[in-house]
Amino acid sequence: VKLLTLARDLRRRKARERQGRFVAEGVRAVEELLASALPVHGLLVAPGLEAGERGRELLERASARGVPIQPVSEAELASAADTESPQGVLAIGDVPDRSLDALAPRDGARLVVLDGLQDPGNVGTILRTAAAFGFGGLVALPGTVDLWNAKVVRSAMGALFHMPTATADLESFGTFLARYDVPLWAADAHGAPLDVASRPVPPRLALALGNEGAGLSPALRARADHLVAIPIASGVESLNVAVAAGILLHALRA
Amino acid sequence: VKLLTLARDLRRRKARERQGRFVAEGVRAVEELLASALPVHGLLVAPGLEAGERGRELLERASARGVPIQPVSEAELASAADTESPQGVLAIGDVPDRSLDALAPRDGARLVVLDGLQDPGNVGTILRTAAAFGFGGLVALPGTVDLWNAKVVRSAMGALFHMPTATADLESFGTFLARYDVPLWAADAHGAPLDVASRPVPPRLALALGNEGAGLSPALRARADHLVAIPIASGVESLNVAVAAGILLHALRA
Repeated sequence: VKLLTLARDLRRRKARERQGRFVAEGVRAVEELLASALPVHGLLVAPGLEAGERGRELLERASARGVPIQPVSEAELASAADTESPQGVLAIGDVPDRSLDALAPRDGARLVVLDGLQDPGNVGTILRTAAAFGFGGLVALPGTVDLWNAKVVRSAMGALFHMPTATADLESFGTFLARYDVPLWAADAHGAPLDVASRPVPPRLALALGNEGAGLSPALRARADHLVAIPIASGVESLNVAVAAGILLHALRA
Repeated sequence: VKLLTLARDLRRRKARERQGRFVAEGVRAVEELLASALPVHGLLVAPGLEAGERGRELLERASARGVPIQPVSEAELASAADTESPQGVLAIGDVPDRSLDALAPRDGARLVVLDGLQDPGNVGTILRTAAAFGFGGLVALPGTVDLWNAKVVRSAMGALFHMPTATADLESFGTFLARYDVPLWAADAHGAPLDVASRPVPPRLALALGNEGAGLSPALRARADHLVAIPIASGVESLNVAVAAGILLHALRA
């Protein structure tokens, strides 16, 4: 029952960081994980999973990859799960290299930067959107929710297993931007209206998004080369950050 | 304690439809409701609310509007609430006219149409986005979550209290489109790539979005005058529907 103990432990961010492992939950997420290049440490499987064809196929794929499969009861699975219905399956995966070096950009490369985003659903959705528009990596700055949180994993719909990501402080990120000559744009209500036609998009670009309530941190705003805004109707306070990210990532797509 | 009984009852869609009332929960939503033109039937207030200045201001505004205020215990408030922390306040509001006639469009008008959207967070976010981009109304077709669900109310961030909305079946909606000469565009992965530059946006327009998993219903797809897609990277299955809506509503804004 070592895998079960480990999965329960991995619900805490500190444990994920110490162990370098995370949990993917539910049929869809485990399918995506098994289809990715990430090492999979093991599966926890409740009795119901084998009842469906999709569940059986998932078990076959895990066996073919040589992934250990640990049968557990529904109650045991629930004790390690984040959702109320983990659909009979959890997988433990290895967190890939999280350093900025993994993101060294080429021309045409786009990075998305999360400056203190708190909501795991927003972060997962932004990862999914970044993958859809050809962004080559994502950087999480301090104050951002852990990228390997179960809810981020779920809402990223597999994007997290393919896109290079890094966790960094602003200083080392600034050094990285300077070394690779990457301009930093940031979304801000007081920025210039987005207009790709009149302002050419640089060959390399990092686009930062701020916290759901407070927006960009003062340090990041000061570091940004260009602030960009999406004009909205008066009387409306703001866009949801994942929606704003979607509009910007679409406009700035590679 | 009649307001408390009513608020508890309004957690069910059937009760909301029968009573023509809904619940707004938390300081922000109640502030937005009190600032709107919608009739407010009463407030339920737990002891903690008066401790903060924002709570006291909210109570003053309610009194100034002549809204009945019912003190309840934290436990009573929680028994009527949808969230775990309703922040000490719930308000009961009147659902405005939900008929299509409320949406009769003028030139330049844009409508957003929800064809079976299930997730209340997505629906609230789309309402908020539609308000931000000057859309004049929203139509919920069968299979869509109730617009006056507590979670939609919360994630719409006030937009629901200002934007005209209607619930309709596809037949009466089709009659409405024909009567007012409104073309129906619909988002579909197999549609033509979005390109506002090459295809002019009609002076009146309804834009439909489909269910999170299944997409558009066959009947709506058949009724649409134009199917529009957002091209995404191969290997990525789809965008989140609220993100896709954001990109399209931004491109087609009034």
